[in-house]
Amino acid sequence: MYTTRRNFIKQSIGAGAMILGSAFVSRSQGVLKEKVLDKKLGIALIGLGYYSTEILAPALQETKNVYLAGIVSGAMDNEQYWLEKYNIPRRNVYNYENFDSIADNKDIDIIYVVLPNSMHKEYTIRAARAGKHVLCEKPMAVYAADCEEMIKACKDNNVRLSIGYRMQFEPHTQEVMRYGREKVFGDIKYVTASAGFINQSPKTHWKLQKAYGGGVLMDMGVYSIQGARYTIGEEPVSVTAQQYKTDPERYSEVDEIVTMQLTFPGGAIANLMTSFNVSTNMLYAAAERGWFDMNPFSSYRGIKLRTNNGPVELADINQQARQMDEVAWCIVNNLPMRVPGEEGLRDLKVVEAARKALASGKKENII
Amino acid sequence: MYTTRRNFIKQSIGAGAMILGSAFVSRSQGVLKEKVLDKKLGIALIGLGYYSTEILAPALQETKNVYLAGIVSGAMDNEQYWLEKYNIPRRNVYNYENFDSIADNKDIDIIYVVLPNSMHKEYTIRAARAGKHVLCEKPMAVYAADCEEMIKACKDNNVRLSIGYRMQFEPHTQEVMRYGREKVFGDIKYVTASAGFINQSPKTHWKLQKAYGGGVLMDMGVYSIQGARYTIGEEPVSVTAQQYKTDPERYSEVDEIVTMQLTFPGGAIANLMTSFNVSTNMLYAAAERGWFDMNPFSSYRGIKLRTNNGPVELADINQQARQMDEVAWCIVNNLPMRVPGEEGLRDLKVVEAARKALASGKKENII
Repeated sequence: MYTTRRNFIKQSIGAGAMILGSAFVSRSQGVLKEKVLDKKLGIALIGLGYYSTEILAPALQETKNVYLAGIVSGAMDNEQYWLEKYNIPRRNVYNYENFDSIADNKDIDIIYVVLPNSMHKEYTIRAARAGKHVLCEKPMAVYAADCEEMIKACKDNNVRLSIGYRMQFEPHTQEVMRYGREKVFGDIKYVTASAGFINQSPKTHWKLQKAYGGGVLMDMGVYSIQGARYTIGEEPVSVTAQQYKTDPERYSEVDEIVTMQLTFPGGAIANLMTSFNVSTNMLYAAAERGWFDMNPFSSYRGIKLRTNNGPVELADINQQARQMDEVAWCIVNNLPMRVPGEEGLRDLKVVEAARKALASGKKENII
Repeated sequence: MYTTRRNFIKQSIGAGAMILGSAFVSRSQGVLKEKVLDKKLGIALIGLGYYSTEILAPALQETKNVYLAGIVSGAMDNEQYWLEKYNIPRRNVYNYENFDSIADNKDIDIIYVVLPNSMHKEYTIRAARAGKHVLCEKPMAVYAADCEEMIKACKDNNVRLSIGYRMQFEPHTQEVMRYGREKVFGDIKYVTASAGFINQSPKTHWKLQKAYGGGVLMDMGVYSIQGARYTIGEEPVSVTAQQYKTDPERYSEVDEIVTMQLTFPGGAIANLMTSFNVSTNMLYAAAERGWFDMNPFSSYRGIKLRTNNGPVELADINQQARQMDEVAWCIVNNLPMRVPGEEGLRDLKVVEAARKALASGKKENII
């Protein structure tokens, strides 16, 4: 059984840096406290591509509640690099064949699934069956039904599940969520968001292949969907969608550019765009009594927020480190996850309806 | 015959305040000069509603090349207010019955048509036949074919025609046009723009009536269409469109909220929104090597521009005064109009295709 102690953390620049209302960082007697476990949980990364190599592993050098305990290494991965750089003991290195025997390894508490989208389901379920908690990258899976299976597998095996959306841990994003929740500017009436980058990967990359759950809607579109959902604070009920290809040969299997219009129960509309053809990352909201925007809104660092009253400057944190620390805290203390599997499922339901709308050319209900 | 003289004008705050590359304000020997006519042209306003009363008549107190010489007054207009406030001689006051006799009035050089949309065509053509130059409010007319008739009538009667879009005269907007034209950030790949206000007029107001060419697409949507066109610097080739009604009874005759997606020959996409349900006025563009946005982008004053490099602060001018002065200058000197009838026609072609797309639910070509 894990116990907790409380450490003071330095206040970042500006009072706004304090993340209030968080399950993880709380204010007690006027002093900001960060919840730190007595003993770090061990995390194993499966899928050692760019995100694990350049983002997660470095973030795990900053975490207080988790540490990089192991890896699951494939034929194409540079196992030696990981062993040396992060002092990972050989006993904590698995491959795709012996992965299930990770069940016997007491060093590993959490498996972080960073594989291509089509593999999220299988490895989340196998990790759950091995008795390990799961952090699974976004988008949660290729189909909503997959998400439901993953949620069930974790429940059945009594392990916790969280999806690797980072924005919910980011201070400016939390402030935007507060605007919607507390109606600081009145009801949100309109959101537009765009998320894209210039994809220069070879056509053989999994993000350009249908079999791996590739395509821009899955890769970047989910950020704009998430953005609309957390800004408006409601679940969308219908979607229309359009797609465009500037290079139909390259994007023969998957979508290159998609626009989507979501409607919400309260009458709000979200007009979204996602692209493999341009670098863009912005979210704008118009409300009854004002507006606000974030540019960028879903980048790893440097989120910028302004409202019609001026800029809002909060702390620029390591989102991945914050997320992994809070996930560990919630596991140990049996607290609700900030981004549970159900959150990934909701996005997939929108994605599925959007796919249907792309095919039918019609407005489709989100079930 | 009019002749010209040149006056120095005060440089507004910041070097950026100089409107270079303009047909109207030119740089000569390093000194900024404004082109001012020896004799002001006389303008008559027809349609004495909010825009004439609160915006155009006050602007005409600042103009150097035109003055408020006359009015065309309807049964509901407060003729006495106009006569007293602006010292308009009785001989320059017309009504809708004797309007055509304005042909004999040497005081009136230009008729500014500020009537409900459905009346633009008739009064532009009657003004042209009376031998008067025409400034016609946006949107130019209800149908593209109307615009073509208006252009022809002005040509046949040897008078000039300009449409009352103001943005082309606004320094920040001109800078944005330069970004597109000179590819300052490379090719523009994506534009999103929204233009809306909370319409609180009674249902009897012409903007809520189909017979008058009402509806939000006509009233505010044309700003977002114009914005996409002048930012991308190309003419759109296809459109998909969606509409939403939060109050179907109030908006039984006309559109309340519309979203539109335009495609451009070079592969750029514009994702637009216009609404009678929320106050919003923003335009964002993502290009190959950066982004920029304007918020607001089509307001009468206070346009704000920023790029990924920071804010761009230019002069905040009286757009209506600048436009009317330049129109007069171009009439006298037989120079091309910055916003000719053809510009209004192009927007109506997009509007017509958007109406078709709203009805069909399909992508429609813009012919």
